[in-house]
Amino acid sequence: MQYVGQHMELVTRGAGFIGSHLVDALVASGKSVRVLDNFSSGRMEFLSHHDGSGMVEVVKADLLDPEAVRQALVDVDVVHHMAANPDIRLGTTVTDTDLKQGTVATYNVLEAMRLEDVGQISFSSSSAVYGEADVMPTPETYGPIKPISLYGASKLASEALITAWCGTFGAKSWVHRFANIVGPRGTHGVIYDFIHKLKADQGRLEVLGNGRQEKSYMSAHDCVQAMVHLVDNTSADVNLYNLGTGDTCSVRRIAEIVVEESGLEGVSIEYTGGDRGWAGDVPKTSLNVESLFATGFRPDMMSEQAIRHTASALISEIGL
Amino acid sequence: MQYVGQHMELVTRGAGFIGSHLVDALVASGKSVRVLDNFSSGRMEFLSHHDGSGMVEVVKADLLDPEAVRQALVDVDVVHHMAANPDIRLGTTVTDTDLKQGTVATYNVLEAMRLEDVGQISFSSSSAVYGEADVMPTPETYGPIKPISLYGASKLASEALITAWCGTFGAKSWVHRFANIVGPRGTHGVIYDFIHKLKADQGRLEVLGNGRQEKSYMSAHDCVQAMVHLVDNTSADVNLYNLGTGDTCSVRRIAEIVVEESGLEGVSIEYTGGDRGWAGDVPKTSLNVESLFATGFRPDMMSEQAIRHTASALISEIGL
Repeated sequence: MQYVGQHMELVTRGAGFIGSHLVDALVASGKSVRVLDNFSSGRMEFLSHHDGSGMVEVVKADLLDPEAVRQALVDVDVVHHMAANPDIRLGTTVTDTDLKQGTVATYNVLEAMRLEDVGQISFSSSSAVYGEADVMPTPETYGPIKPISLYGASKLASEALITAWCGTFGAKSWVHRFANIVGPRGTHGVIYDFIHKLKADQGRLEVLGNGRQEKSYMSAHDCVQAMVHLVDNTSADVNLYNLGTGDTCSVRRIAEIVVEESGLEGVSIEYTGGDRGWAGDVPKTSLNVESLFATGFRPDMMSEQAIRHTASALISEIGL
Repeated sequence: MQYVGQHMELVTRGAGFIGSHLVDALVASGKSVRVLDNFSSGRMEFLSHHDGSGMVEVVKADLLDPEAVRQALVDVDVVHHMAANPDIRLGTTVTDTDLKQGTVATYNVLEAMRLEDVGQISFSSSSAVYGEADVMPTPETYGPIKPISLYGASKLASEALITAWCGTFGAKSWVHRFANIVGPRGTHGVIYDFIHKLKADQGRLEVLGNGRQEKSYMSAHDCVQAMVHLVDNTSADVNLYNLGTGDTCSVRRIAEIVVEESGLEGVSIEYTGGDRGWAGDVPKTSLNVESLFATGFRPDMMSEQAIRHTASALISEIGL
């Protein structure tokens, strides 16, 4: 992969799970893409199908290195900022990861944009910003929002930095509040964890909590299609949307689907109990996606279908 | 001032403008107080009336020194976290001040609370978190909120860290979204600026913008009374309230009041034009304070009265 010329789009954590799907979508729409990734969880193999295409350039650098970020922004028109600590649960034991890899990294991206005169940013926020909302499905207009995880806090902090940059320095932004995104190349999350548990013990699947946690899921493919759709079709200074399917799925149902897709017989699904998986886990999330749908976007898969598709793909990737 | 024993309340930036008023209110209600201040803008003289009372202990340290923060939290029951960069406009030229002195400083306070097992935090947030809201007076339930200043972003980021700590580690919090707070000991803001301008040129007062910017003002005395009232009378995990008077005052009217209180004759008030003082300045803010009033609190002074009282006090402090 090599330098491909001017007017490209940058994807931070472009070798990661959702980032690499976004690279696929951007290349499919004819865009030249630069990937910035520190490869802490990103993998070069997620991009290897673009080798030789001349459309994708890869820069290995860390967002906590301001000078490297600035260099990566040369000739860039739009930054798709996907980088973050992917492990939401980590915040319960290590408290500075989300601050650094979330909030400070976003600051570094924005400051580099200001210095290099890059005026557009599309950001992967999260339904985690809503914490335990009283209103479900939760619309973008819900407030006050009170994230309960350190991950959610870093996403809200990043959103705030972005809107402040727009208000103070004239940048234009898209803020995408993601449902739980699932799909091939996933490197974390409940489906990934269940498969690894089954790999270790094919007779038993332990589920954290009582299994009644219920959340919105969206396939990575639909997620990046929605991102590209919104960037192409909305034009406010700050374009903030929930990204999801409009329905939900319980953890209990996910466990059943993963077992079904595994082909294993006689698996005992066991619950540790309690209404959440861990402190900071939100037991129920349901995103109101009327605003997204009003822009003309529709997902290809609903929550259960996305989960089944993902379970099948990850079982192939991970092996059982 | 010296160490006064166990079970005290900590006030960060307690030698600052609002912080020192809060120290007064806490001492008046019989509390022992530890002040933590780096004296970047705080002044020992704001606390000198407590000398010899045995109620106030002062620690000179910076919130960016995690070990010093941790030491300052020993034997503390409640942290009143008032520290922040006081100069909102600075963010238009220096972009990392609010990140460090706001967001990272709040992280350090929360992390020290976790390590020292201090379970309660009362935080001075700001109406700046709302940015340019579509709904005025703006209630706490307004969303999505999009701060347009780097100061507002750091306040929202700090709120998010606080709610995440409550959700993940079980802390209890009060989040106070302040109107523009004015009063004696003020070290920044429009009234302070106007008096310094008049001191430099007694015949002319230049006002940034067209003077039609209109905001909620509250006296520092009422502000700290409201903070103490809410800590004493609300008990959710996260208690989030707008703090203000319910009315607004224009910059034009403030200029007139400052000139009146100055006693100067024939001052020409001149406007630079434009609908805001600077990029990131919010032209109009009006806080809905129904929730605060529903708790039984009422301010002593409305906006104009608070401004006149402040102008008089600051003219005495600064001199003309």
